[in-house]
Amino acid sequence: MLVKFASEVPLEPAQEGIGIRWLIAAKDGAPNFAMRVIEVEPGVTFAPHAHPWEHEIYALEGEGLLLGLDGERPLVPGQAIFVPPDELHGYRNTGEKTLKFICVIPHTK
Amino acid sequence: MLVKFASEVPLEPAQEGIGIRWLIAAKDGAPNFAMRVIEVEPGVTFAPHAHPWEHEIYALEGEGLLLGLDGERPLVPGQAIFVPPDELHGYRNTGEKTLKFICVIPHTK
Repeated sequence: MLVKFASEVPLEPAQEGIGIRWLIAAKDGAPNFAMRVIEVEPGVTFAPHAHPWEHEIYALEGEGLLLGLDGERPLVPGQAIFVPPDELHGYRNTGEKTLKFICVIPHTK
Repeated sequence: MLVKFASEVPLEPAQEGIGIRWLIAAKDGAPNFAMRVIEVEPGVTFAPHAHPWEHEIYALEGEGLLLGLDGERPLVPGQAIFVPPDELHGYRNTGEKTLKFICVIPHTK
C-alpha cells in the first residue's frame, strides 16, 4: 500500500498557471489508470481541447467554469464530471483561490 | 460531458454502516474504470480483505485508519492511497463524522 499526501507530490508545470500532481501513476505500479490533481491559478483558462481518452474528474477546491460542447457550466467542489473520449473540454478558474480537481486517465493515453 | 454532485448520487448500502456512491460507472459510458465514493460511519470497520483488482483512493472527509500488511496507519483528508491488486486492505472510522474517500477501480473487477 502506497500512501502519500497530495500536497507533497511535486506540482509539474503544464502551461502558464496550470500544474499537475501525479498522485498515482504507472511508475508506482498502477496497472490500468493514473490519478492526478490538476491545479489552475485564478484567472487562468485551460483552453478547450479533445483527445481519444476519457477523464473521470472530482472537483476538490476553488470555483470555475467547465467549457464544453454545451458552452460554460459551473465547476464547484463536490462535483463529479465524466468527459468521454474525443469530447471537447476545458476549464477556467473564475475564483480567487487555486482551482483543484482530481482527474483520472487510462494509461493507454 | 456528464456532471453531477456526489451528494446527489444514491448511497447504496454495502455493509452495516458502509455505503457506496457510484459517481461514474460503466452505465454512464465510462470505458475503463469507475469512480466511487465510499462512506464509512463513525465506529465502523471495513474489515481487511483482498481481491485481484487495484484501488486508487483519495481521502475527502473524516478521520480513520488504514488497515493493511503494515498494521494500522492514519487515514486523513488529502491523502492518496494506492492499493495494488491482491494486497490486504481495510478501513476504520475512528472519528465523529462520516469517513469519505474516492475509490477508483477497473471495470475488469
